[in-house]
Amino acid sequence: MHLAETSQKNDPLTGTQRGAILWFTGLSGAGKSTLAEAVAPVLRGRGRRVEVLDGDEVRLHLSKGLGFSREDRDTNVQRIGYVAHLLQRNGVLVLTAAISPYRATRDWVRGLAGDFIEIHVATPLEVCEARDVKGLYRRARAGEIKEFTGISDPYEPPLHPELTLPTHELSREACVARVLQRLEELGYLTPTGA
Amino acid sequence: MHLAETSQKNDPLTGTQRGAILWFTGLSGAGKSTLAEAVAPVLRGRGRRVEVLDGDEVRLHLSKGLGFSREDRDTNVQRIGYVAHLLQRNGVLVLTAAISPYRATRDWVRGLAGDFIEIHVATPLEVCEARDVKGLYRRARAGEIKEFTGISDPYEPPLHPELTLPTHELSREACVARVLQRLEELGYLTPTGA
Repeated sequence: MHLAETSQKNDPLTGTQRGAILWFTGLSGAGKSTLAEAVAPVLRGRGRRVEVLDGDEVRLHLSKGLGFSREDRDTNVQRIGYVAHLLQRNGVLVLTAAISPYRATRDWVRGLAGDFIEIHVATPLEVCEARDVKGLYRRARAGEIKEFTGISDPYEPPLHPELTLPTHELSREACVARVLQRLEELGYLTPTGA
Repeated sequence: MHLAETSQKNDPLTGTQRGAILWFTGLSGAGKSTLAEAVAPVLRGRGRRVEVLDGDEVRLHLSKGLGFSREDRDTNVQRIGYVAHLLQRNGVLVLTAAISPYRATRDWVRGLAGDFIEIHVATPLEVCEARDVKGLYRRARAGEIKEFTGISDPYEPPLHPELTLPTHELSREACVARVLQRLEELGYLTPTGA
C-alpha cells in the first residue's frame, strides 16, 4: 500500500476527506458494536464526523416488525446500507455493526456506496458462544430462537475484506489500531504527524 | 427577525454552518417535491451539502410493505425524521417531501432534530385535485384508494410553520426565493453578499 499516503481521498465539494462506510460484520457476540464504539471517539478526536449505526438500534428505528428470515435480514441490511450511504456521501465516517450474514447483501452495499471498508470481526463461533453476552446462544441451542446465525442460519464470511480482526488473538486496543492504520492506508484518514 | 444576521448557526466541530431539516408538508400534489428539487441545486450552488428525501423514494428504501393507515403513515414519517436527523446533525441541509399529515408526528420530528424548519406547502385541496398530476385524486374520489389524505383521511395543517407557501398565488421562483430568505433569517444560510 505504498500509494496510500499520496492518494488521500478528498471530497470535491469541501476539499476535506471523504466519508466512508466501515462495515463491521461477524457473528452475534463477535465484538462488532464494541469495536465500532471504541473506534468512533478516536476518529472524532481526529476531527472527523462519525456516526455509529448499531444493528439493534437500526432495527428499532427503521425495521420494526422485520424478523430474521433471509428476506427480512436482507431488507434490514439494505436499509442500513441505504442510510449509511446517505451519510457517507456527505463526508461522514459511518461505522455499522450488524451481523449481515449474507455475502451477496454486503456486496450490494459495497456496490451502492463505493467507499466501503469491510471489516470482518472474525471471532470464532466457540468464542462467541462461550462469551454469550446476551444469552442468545444458550436460547438458540435450546431451540427457543429459530434462524440464529452460526447455529441454525448461515454466516458467510467475507472473501476479500479490507480488514480481518481476530478478536480472540488481539486486544481491543490492537484491533482499534489496525482499523485506524487501514483507514490511513486506504486514504480515508490522514496519518497523525503527516 | 433582526437578530438573524448576527446569529448564524455554526457547527462546533467544523465551524461551518449547521445542518437543518427543511420539512415540506402538504397535500398530495401540493408541490412539495417540485419545490424541494428546485431549492436543492440553489443550496448546493452556495456550497452546502444537500439531500432530498422524497416520500416515495423513502417508502421504497425504508418502508416497503407499509400501507397508509395512521400507524403506518406515522412509522414512515418517523423513519424519514430519523434519517433526516442523522444527516442534519452532520451538517447537511435535508429537504424532505412527504405529505406527513399528522401534526403530532411532525412535532415529534421537530423535537428529535431541533434544527427543524417546517414549510407548509399550502396549496388548497381544490387546486391539488384540479392538477391531479398522478391521477390519485380521481381514483380516491372513485373509492379506489382508501385513506387518501384530504379526501378520506385528515390533513392537519401546521399551526406555527416557519414558512407558508401558497403555491397557487406565487410562482415557483418566488417560492424558492422565500425559502432561501427564511433560511437566511433563521441563520442556516449566509446571505449572498454578506
